Parts: sequence; structure tokens; C-alpha cells
Amino acid sequence: MALMQLTVIPIGTATPSVGDHVAAIHEVLATAGFPYELHDMGTLIEGEVGPLLALAARLHALSFDRGVQRVVTQIVVDERRDKKISMGDKTASVRRRLA
Amino acid sequence: MALMQLTVIPIGTATPSVGDHVAAIHEVLATAGFPYELHDMGTLIEGEVGPLLALAARLHALSFDRGVQRVVTQIVVDERRDKKISMGDKTASVRRRLA
Amino acid sequence: MALMQLTVIPIGTATPSVGDHVAAIHEVLATAGFPYELHDMGTLIEGEVGPLLALAARLHALSFDRGVQRVVTQIVVDERRDKKISMGDKTASVRRRLA
Amino acid sequence: MALMQLTVIPIGTATPSVGDHVAAIHEVLATAGFPYELHDMGTLIEGEVGPLLALAARLHALSFDRGVQRVVTQIVVDERRDKKISMGDKTASVRRRLA
Repeated sequence: MALMQLTVIPIGTATPSVGDHVAAIHEVLATAGFPYELHDMGTLIEGEVGPLLALAARLHALSFDRGVQRVVTQIVVDERRDKKISMGDKTASVRRRLA
Repeated sequence: MALMQLTVIPIGTATPSVGDHVAAIHEVLATAGFPYELHDMGTLIEGEVGPLLALAARLHALSFDRGVQRVVTQIVVDERRDKKISMGDKTASVRRRLA
Repeated sequence: MALMQLTVIPIGTATPSVGDHVAAIHEVLATAGFPYELHDMGTLIEGEVGPLLALAARLHALSFDRGVQRVVTQIVVDERRDKKISMGDKTASVRRRLA
Repeated sequence: MALMQLTVIPIGTATPSVGDHVAAIHEVLATAGFPYELHDMGTLIEGEVGPLLALAARLHALSFDRGVQRVVTQIVVDERRDKKISMGDKTASVRRRLA
């Protein structure tokens, strides 16, 4: 299993606010069947790498439907095969060390 | 004000786990005077861009003290000058749109 | 058309050098049918977003075949629909402005 | 020594083109005293980590002078202490393996 972080940046939006674009992504995520979590710099999504990157392609495309002509999407995939990693595991592991 | 996302990746650690390195970063953050928040793919820190990047240089250097010979650090800085952005504002703004 | 930047980082490699992993990626790229270019911090690949991200999933998986248990892959996709962008266009456009 | 990759993304530019912003960065780099190299998804700069991140703060700020109200800057720092890395070394090392 893997965690993916996704940040979609529409370019040429006329306004500095991109919250509507992020909301459109989260409407799709609500029914896409992957555990996910929004933070201030992106969205974390849990799954297998192939399906996660196929989902990323779909979410990247959404902003074009909203009228922009250029979209930059940043993706980070973190996959471990020595043990299962799920959302929240990594933060819990660091907090245990700090306790 | 700006938000910075920081992810420090020590290379050549012999084990796939890097939680000790993240914990060392958070020990420094606990006394560094910036609001911060850990998520599963990095740490968010709030402040002015200059001091944030000086802090990033310091946090990047920590892993060398732990014996690794190579460190890759990813940083994303998001700064707005049309309005104040603080930790939690962006997620709150998206949640309002989805409500 | 889009450009993708791909950086694959194997974690827990015992040595700080990851050149063998990058070479394995470039052996696949040599027959994958996409224009590509290596630079010091990643590889640029040109194509449509869906096929590019499917290729990224395949390249990400290669390092597990080489014995590591964790791989972090960073991807940036830059797509424009107002005009065709090909490898080299963006650097050429900046150089014209500086000339 | 370290390599830094810098990508500055102005948000709310009205047009999808950001080449003027990149050109402004390269005008500063031309006199900043660091070896650097433009590629299609960012700029590589060679130096020590502290000075590199101070330079990144300065380059990030340039786009605000051009009238945008929000700038997202992505930075990746790759530092090795087991051997000197200079611009071009990593690509040369991969090419040797593929030869």
C-alpha cells in the first residue's frame, strides 16, 4: 500500500484563490472509494500506486473543466513493501518517539 | 505570511524507516517559535518566507548529525500578500465550499 | 500535451548512491516511446497525462525489483491546453526573453 | 556542496504563461555568483545549503514585484557529504552506467 500527496495548481486563474478547484477535487474524492485527508498544502490519499496515479490523472483534469488553460500538479508517492502503511501511521509513529 | 511544507528524506539509512529523523526535526520545532503541524507526508510550518527557509536549512542539516551522508529535502512555500494565511485557513475554506 | 518531471528516491539503500536505480529507469525509457531527458534532479518526459502517469507507476515499481523496501517518487505534471508544449520550448522561451 | 532545484509558480497571473517571471529570476541569477542551469521544469543551482535557501527566498519574492499576490515556490535540496557533487555529475554518472 502507498500514500499519495496531491497538489493541483491552476495557472492563469485571474484571482489568487484556488479553493473552488480544491473543492471540485474533493467532490470527486467523496465517491472515489479511497481514504483521503485534506491538509493545508495538499490532499493525502491511500491506495495502491497504479490506481492512485490513475486517480491523480482524473483529478488533474478537473481544473480544465473550470476554464483554466494550464494546470501544474505535484504528486508524491510513498510506498513501503516491508509493512503496511495507512493514513495516520506515520504521524502516530513520530508522536510515539516524541512522547 | 506564508506556509511552508518540509519533507526531509535521508538517503542510505540501511532501514526503510525514517521516523527517528522526523522526530529529531520535531524536537527542534518544539522550541523554534513557529506554529507547525505534522502530517503523514511532511510538516507544515507558518511564518515569513526568509525565516522559514533559514529554519529549513537548519532542519535539513539535522539528519547528517544522525550519521547519514546524503539528505534530500523537499520544500514548498505558499505565500499570499492579498490576505493573511494561517495554518488551517485553507482547509477551512475548502470545507465551507463543500458544506 | 504535457511535461512530467519524475524523481524516484529509493529509501534504505545502505549507500548514498542511487545512480543504479536511475539507470534502470532510463533502460525502460529507452524503449517506452516517449521523448525524455535526464537532468541532475530528475527526468523530464513528454506525453499525454494519462499515459505519463501510467508510465510513472511502472518506473516507480522498478526499484523494488532491485531489493529496496521503500520508494518515494516525486512527480510534477505541467499541462497546457492553450498551446502545444514540447521538451525544450520553455527554456527556449525564457532564453529569448533574456537575449 | 548541494544542488537545489527551484520552481517558482505565480498564482493569479491572468495568462497561463509565466516565462517573464522565470526570466526575472535568471536576470538575478546571472549576477548572484552561483553556477546554475535552466531546464523545462525548474532551475538547478549549485552551492552550500544555507546560501542556496537564502537565494531561494530572494528569487521567490521577485514575482510579487511583478504584480501577483500569491506565489508558490517548490524547492528540492540534495546534499551529499561523502563526496562533492557538482552540476552535471549525476547525469554523467547515470550515462556511464548506461554506456
